[in-house]
Amino acid sequence: MRSHYCGALGTGNIDETVTLCGWVDRRRDHGGVIFLDLRDREGIVQVVFDPDTEEHFQRADRVRSEYVLKVTGRVRARGEGTVNPNMATGEIEVLGKELEILNSAATPPFQLDEHTAVGEDVRLKHRYMDLRRPEMQNKLMLRARITSAVRQFLDREGFLDIETPILTRATPEGARDYLVPSRTHPGHFFALPQSPQLFKQLLMVSGFDRYYQVAKCFRDEDLRADRQPEFTQIDIETSFLGEEEIMGITERMIRELFQNVLDVELGEFPHMTYAEAMERFGSDKPDLRIAMELVSIDDLMQQVDFKVFRGPADDPNGRVAALKVPGGASISRKEIDDYTKYVSIFGARGLAWIKVNDLAAGIEGLQSPILKFMPDEVVNQMMERLEAKDGDIIFFGADKTGVVNESLGALRLKVAEDQGLVAEGWAPLWVVDFPMFEDDGNGGWTPLHHPFTAPSCSPEELQANPGEALSRAYDMVLNGTELGGGSVRIHQRDMQEAVFTLLGIGQEEAEEKFGFLLNALQYGAPPHGGLAFGLDRLVMLMTGAASIREVIAFPKTQTAACVMTDAPGEVGAQQLRELNIRLRQKQQEQGE
Amino acid sequence: MRSHYCGALGTGNIDETVTLCGWVDRRRDHGGVIFLDLRDREGIVQVVFDPDTEEHFQRADRVRSEYVLKVTGRVRARGEGTVNPNMATGEIEVLGKELEILNSAATPPFQLDEHTAVGEDVRLKHRYMDLRRPEMQNKLMLRARITSAVRQFLDREGFLDIETPILTRATPEGARDYLVPSRTHPGHFFALPQSPQLFKQLLMVSGFDRYYQVAKCFRDEDLRADRQPEFTQIDIETSFLGEEEIMGITERMIRELFQNVLDVELGEFPHMTYAEAMERFGSDKPDLRIAMELVSIDDLMQQVDFKVFRGPADDPNGRVAALKVPGGASISRKEIDDYTKYVSIFGARGLAWIKVNDLAAGIEGLQSPILKFMPDEVVNQMMERLEAKDGDIIFFGADKTGVVNESLGALRLKVAEDQGLVAEGWAPLWVVDFPMFEDDGNGGWTPLHHPFTAPSCSPEELQANPGEALSRAYDMVLNGTELGGGSVRIHQRDMQEAVFTLLGIGQEEAEEKFGFLLNALQYGAPPHGGLAFGLDRLVMLMTGAASIREVIAFPKTQTAACVMTDAPGEVGAQQLRELNIRLRQKQQEQGE
Repeated sequence: MRSHYCGALGTGNIDETVTLCGWVDRRRDHGGVIFLDLRDREGIVQVVFDPDTEEHFQRADRVRSEYVLKVTGRVRARGEGTVNPNMATGEIEVLGKELEILNSAATPPFQLDEHTAVGEDVRLKHRYMDLRRPEMQNKLMLRARITSAVRQFLDREGFLDIETPILTRATPEGARDYLVPSRTHPGHFFALPQSPQLFKQLLMVSGFDRYYQVAKCFRDEDLRADRQPEFTQIDIETSFLGEEEIMGITERMIRELFQNVLDVELGEFPHMTYAEAMERFGSDKPDLRIAMELVSIDDLMQQVDFKVFRGPADDPNGRVAALKVPGGASISRKEIDDYTKYVSIFGARGLAWIKVNDLAAGIEGLQSPILKFMPDEVVNQMMERLEAKDGDIIFFGADKTGVVNESLGALRLKVAEDQGLVAEGWAPLWVVDFPMFEDDGNGGWTPLHHPFTAPSCSPEELQANPGEALSRAYDMVLNGTELGGGSVRIHQRDMQEAVFTLLGIGQEEAEEKFGFLLNALQYGAPPHGGLAFGLDRLVMLMTGAASIREVIAFPKTQTAACVMTDAPGEVGAQQLRELNIRLRQKQQEQGE
Repeated sequence: MRSHYCGALGTGNIDETVTLCGWVDRRRDHGGVIFLDLRDREGIVQVVFDPDTEEHFQRADRVRSEYVLKVTGRVRARGEGTVNPNMATGEIEVLGKELEILNSAATPPFQLDEHTAVGEDVRLKHRYMDLRRPEMQNKLMLRARITSAVRQFLDREGFLDIETPILTRATPEGARDYLVPSRTHPGHFFALPQSPQLFKQLLMVSGFDRYYQVAKCFRDEDLRADRQPEFTQIDIETSFLGEEEIMGITERMIRELFQNVLDVELGEFPHMTYAEAMERFGSDKPDLRIAMELVSIDDLMQQVDFKVFRGPADDPNGRVAALKVPGGASISRKEIDDYTKYVSIFGARGLAWIKVNDLAAGIEGLQSPILKFMPDEVVNQMMERLEAKDGDIIFFGADKTGVVNESLGALRLKVAEDQGLVAEGWAPLWVVDFPMFEDDGNGGWTPLHHPFTAPSCSPEELQANPGEALSRAYDMVLNGTELGGGSVRIHQRDMQEAVFTLLGIGQEEAEEKFGFLLNALQYGAPPHGGLAFGLDRLVMLMTGAASIREVIAFPKTQTAACVMTDAPGEVGAQQLRELNIRLRQKQQEQGE
């Protein structure tokens, strides 16, 4: 029907006769002439109807916002005073000759340009209107470009797009599964996959060598701001490659993606061990756009009497660390109180601080409630280590190592945000050498990644010292967000059994849950490993979206519902009977 | 780890030192030398170890079938007598220098080259082994290429890949839904989509203009040979295009796909009306590789007394048709009896026939139990119309039109298959001008496609004569298989309501089920339409697979189960309690 997209017109089209299809973004009369802003997914163009075209002018006069039109007209340059520099097509306009109303429109439930005032629920209820906004159109168009660029890269590199089942068995990611009752196997349920982990490993056992899938995954968890019940993963697995090669390929993929889609050069990604990331940033996904770091001062604090610092400094499981905020001396007492509350969320029992007012004046030039507990010598050594400058503030954490890392790590992000200390741009890195296990608090171990991650030691060494063992896992982090994570997997049955044993998964449970994997491992499984990227989060970062819901066409609300279609919905008794289930509460209503 | 894929080696690599990774396909000793056939996804190559490489020779000696190896060696030409023309790499071999055993393998549950003897259940249970067979590898690799080629085409044409929800509301395709109990909304259920139909229409209302998705769809139906509970659709929708343009783009997509992937030129697809397809082939998905056609002889049979033919010939809802099988006079009485049984499946109460032995001999040259009921004149006219030749057989159907079309249409396929009358090659076509509705047998109407299909007439004409109305639907048919189908959709609320009314969907039910669509239609819905291809079926045709299960990595069995992972599985009482459901049978066991 159309010859051009509205937004694609420019001075190159002047004097051409074009046919456009789109929506009326705005309509106004001015000096006996009708101006229509016509909108399609590529942009907006101004169409002018004057009374010469009698019949069509009359139609244009009837037109309202969001009517769907087909317009034919001639492109012409705008007069000098009327060029609109805020509009991509602002140098031209279309002199309308013919107008066909393809569909009329009732008054929209909200004005598209006033969406922020109406609240997200109204927008989600009328999502088909909300998605008309150029901002949403651009985000989803960019998402399509990102997915396409990723696929093209992986196709080129010999990865095979292979689909794995959605109706499957409970997978071991540990979150709650969505279940699907089986009609043909009464009392039995499918689970929707939390990831295609086991299937992609089996595809490696099958010899497909390089696999990928843009895969829907499901978790029935209480939703936080950036979670959705269903989300999309770029899921990758390869055989016969070590962690360096896998990181190499996927880093190249992300680099090319940023080049192609955003015209951004990310450069080579630094590698950082988990231990270093925790030590310097208190986080395994450090935001390297922020220059501040946690600095250990345990050795210094072992010399002071101040018990609050001395205790953790002496404790092998404790830590005393300082976080210097450049120019932070101007932070008010009120703000410091707020930060103290903030770190308490992470278990910190206080937030000591020193303001550096005038270093030249020695101790007198410092301002702090804790100075009196420390010898001047220690304070001076500390100032030197921290390279403190006039105008800085230094915050302190002293507690169990985990508490210090978490609270100062979080404080670092918050202060940087508040004080404008987050640099522009992109800061990617790899975090490597994760521990295999975490203490589960009950004398057992839980996997830091998942139970199929290979350790970087032998089964015997692993069993001898599980707390010290490192895994062959790696996370890609960008601007403080985990973009993706993966590992080299266990490919030998004895190692897999050793890990299950350490995790307290007995032989029977292992057979029952993962028997098919254990079997597969003994029939010639190749060394293999892979990675999964969170596509929604990647798109969110690349589009600068505030919420994951902005980059998903039809997202769910925080209670896992779709207000547009009213899903989930009620279901008839007959349907439930076929599935061999009944509702708990409604038992009596069903007459039984 | 590797420098080359095994199957990628050729005479161009002679004298190169290569490193290969793969599985031992076969191992044999011969003249003090060990021959290993090493296999990866790209093919098989022969590796030779001689006793010179002592340590590695000893390892090679320990190797068994399906061991995973890394081999380094030098490529050399095979001696003249030892070239293997049946092997893609048969002109060369690799003289092994180093061998590393990456993993051992227990004796496989079945020999990969003897899979046919073991039955599909064993193969599905050990699917990771079954998928190692080159045949299966090739099918899934071709599937990946097909998907990739389709995506590239659609990306190039400006279609946006947009994901629609899997956890959604019951959709109106009419098959049984898979349900997912909601934990956060007790007593409510999500449905898995039977297609993204409504979402893609809403994306058009949103102005995305061109959408596609390779989408998982779900139907909880009793499975026939070529059905799966989850299947994959290439789902397409566009705005501002009519049926000719939509057919044009998608035909070009399939044509380019066949060019690129199979090097086959399909040429332009003929268009055939539904009425013509039923008349000539008794089917709305005619296999045009078969030259035989159904020929109407109602007018002739109105002249005979033979009640079996005369009745349907006089009945406006009846039909008498003939199917001439060239060279079919050699079909035996036994075979004719079998065909008679076969057509009875479709409701035919018999199968009359005439063998044409010697046309020159007149009526005497024909052989048939029904000749005696017909005047010679009529028989001669019939022979002329059918262009009968010596050696042909002619079968007859006389009944309600539907029964004749279905039974002779099916017979046409079966006889062609049995008698070798299916031509080689590819025969695509479009079937168009479908009726809007079918009589549902209870005085009501059911849609031939779905309730969102636009009629090619006005709402008033539709209501006046629903049985005569044609729709703007189109099916793409290839070799007798429906590859895809679609339509121009209804984009105006009054038309949509008129169709709902005709289908017996009251205003309340329409609001309840499709309220969001009806709403969307009144806020400026563009004219739009689309199409969905069954990807599994397309791949099945293109790979020549016998079953849909051969082109799906992890398919379900006929009872909708996965014998490998043992899905569906049992679920704990706690999990059910969280979902507010209980089992029907097991109520007491759960202690309530």
